[in-house]
Amino acid sequence: MTQTIRFGVSIDERLLKQFDELISKKGYVNRSEAVRDLIRNNLVNEKWESNDDEEAVGTVTLVYDHHTRELADKLTEHQHEYHKNIISSMHIHLDAHHCLEVVVVRGKPSEIKRISDELIGTKGVKHGKLVSTTAGKDMV
Amino acid sequence: MTQTIRFGVSIDERLLKQFDELISKKGYVNRSEAVRDLIRNNLVNEKWESNDDEEAVGTVTLVYDHHTRELADKLTEHQHEYHKNIISSMHIHLDAHHCLEVVVVRGKPSEIKRISDELIGTKGVKHGKLVSTTAGKDMV
Amino acid sequence: MTQTIRFGVSIDERLLKQFDELISKKGYVNRSEAVRDLIRNNLVNEKWESNDDEEAVGTVTLVYDHHTRELADKLTEHQHEYHKNIISSMHIHLDAHHCLEVVVVRGKPSEIKRISDELIGTKGVKHGKLVSTTAGKDMV
Amino acid sequence: MTQTIRFGVSIDERLLKQFDELISKKGYVNRSEAVRDLIRNNLVNEKWESNDDEEAVGTVTLVYDHHTRELADKLTEHQHEYHKNIISSMHIHLDAHHCLEVVVVRGKPSEIKRISDELIGTKGVKHGKLVSTTAGKDMV
Repeated sequence: MTQTIRFGVSIDERLLKQFDELISKKGYVNRSEAVRDLIRNNLVNEKWESNDDEEAVGTVTLVYDHHTRELADKLTEHQHEYHKNIISSMHIHLDAHHCLEVVVVRGKPSEIKRISDELIGTKGVKHGKLVSTTAGKDMV
Repeated sequence: MTQTIRFGVSIDERLLKQFDELISKKGYVNRSEAVRDLIRNNLVNEKWESNDDEEAVGTVTLVYDHHTRELADKLTEHQHEYHKNIISSMHIHLDAHHCLEVVVVRGKPSEIKRISDELIGTKGVKHGKLVSTTAGKDMV
Repeated sequence: MTQTIRFGVSIDERLLKQFDELISKKGYVNRSEAVRDLIRNNLVNEKWESNDDEEAVGTVTLVYDHHTRELADKLTEHQHEYHKNIISSMHIHLDAHHCLEVVVVRGKPSEIKRISDELIGTKGVKHGKLVSTTAGKDMV
Repeated sequence: MTQTIRFGVSIDERLLKQFDELISKKGYVNRSEAVRDLIRNNLVNEKWESNDDEEAVGTVTLVYDHHTRELADKLTEHQHEYHKNIISSMHIHLDAHHCLEVVVVRGKPSEIKRISDELIGTKGVKHGKLVSTTAGKDMV
């Protein structure tokens, strides 16, 4: 079992006041929760930047016009080619023409980036972005 | 009906060579597709930065431990509170403890940011990020 | 005079261990200093995103080839046009052709962005980026 | 000598219209200039992300209170320790208390990041950010 411990932060009261306003605006229940979020966010960014080989997770958001010839087929093909990495996908009908698809990818950061590049680069995809996140288990 | 037109770009051949290497690495079928992606990405960023009121779409990626007491309930509550904006969500079981949830939100950029802040700030969410994208219809 | 106060953060010991490794790698003297930096960074980002009218400071980094006809003149003109906002600039000779110029701009975030766009958009500038920072006085 | 060549981009006229509005707002003289900027920006980001060993340039923006004991001395020490990488620095007096310092660093991306981390992590620095740019010579 792991332990919850406590550490102290010294801070100027005016800076803390501004932080309190921000965390209340963002809906955090307390400072600890907000500070932990900043810490975890920092750790996730660092892991992705340092390109190490630890398993990570990413979500790729794609917006496209489903009338583009063969686009849906090509996206499906890409996803099957990487079926070991692609866990799941969700499809939203934005309007008569536009779809939004979110693809969840698991693997090494370098693999996730490559798969994301291929999906975003598919002819007909209008906008695409990768969110790099964590597989969770280190982010206690 | 809209028209596809063509414009010319003058560029140093060495810069073009580097760009060609990058687009081949990223899997684009041709330069036009790659340039259009850069243009659309630039337009989407600009729209989000200028905080205008046009409808946009965002996806919020959340990683959390589903054993955190009442977390799943709270996330569901948040999502129902904003049912007019939240179109859909997808849930992935990363391991025995961790879930990844992707929530698709539609509305004004300011609304999407507020909803995203609330979801990410929920006690127990370990990591969260917003992808700001487009409702598609302007991004031809 | 303002006061330094202290608040406590509860955190899982494994998460704290990872944070300690990161702050030692980044050279922070202690956790308080690292947490304050995360907090201030968060506040600065928020202020810039919310586009409010409080005075801020930005630095614009430009790389260009000084052989481009009239480029240096145009950059100087731009800077004089905005002399009320542009405090100072620094010029570095990178090699026989390339210059790096850093321009420090003070004003409302919207003014700083407009000036930065104009400088970066000047014909001949090869790469440019804006750092949005703070005038310091609120970031105690 | 290198050659300027020309390539064509096919694009929907409505997308081009939006792009034209954006580039006029940003002050670009023509589309070629704007597209080249997007391309160079993309290449610079890619080089920094892929962590290769090619020489790059970064500028580190620091805001601090010069009354913090020994801060200025420590920053100067850091800069001398890395005198092979640190080309120059500029110092601005923001108000009676606050200084802004911009430090220009040249080296491998990994070296630049490490030096930037050390400078930003120095006790008393209130806000710091790294701009990753190019030594210019590949960005024709």
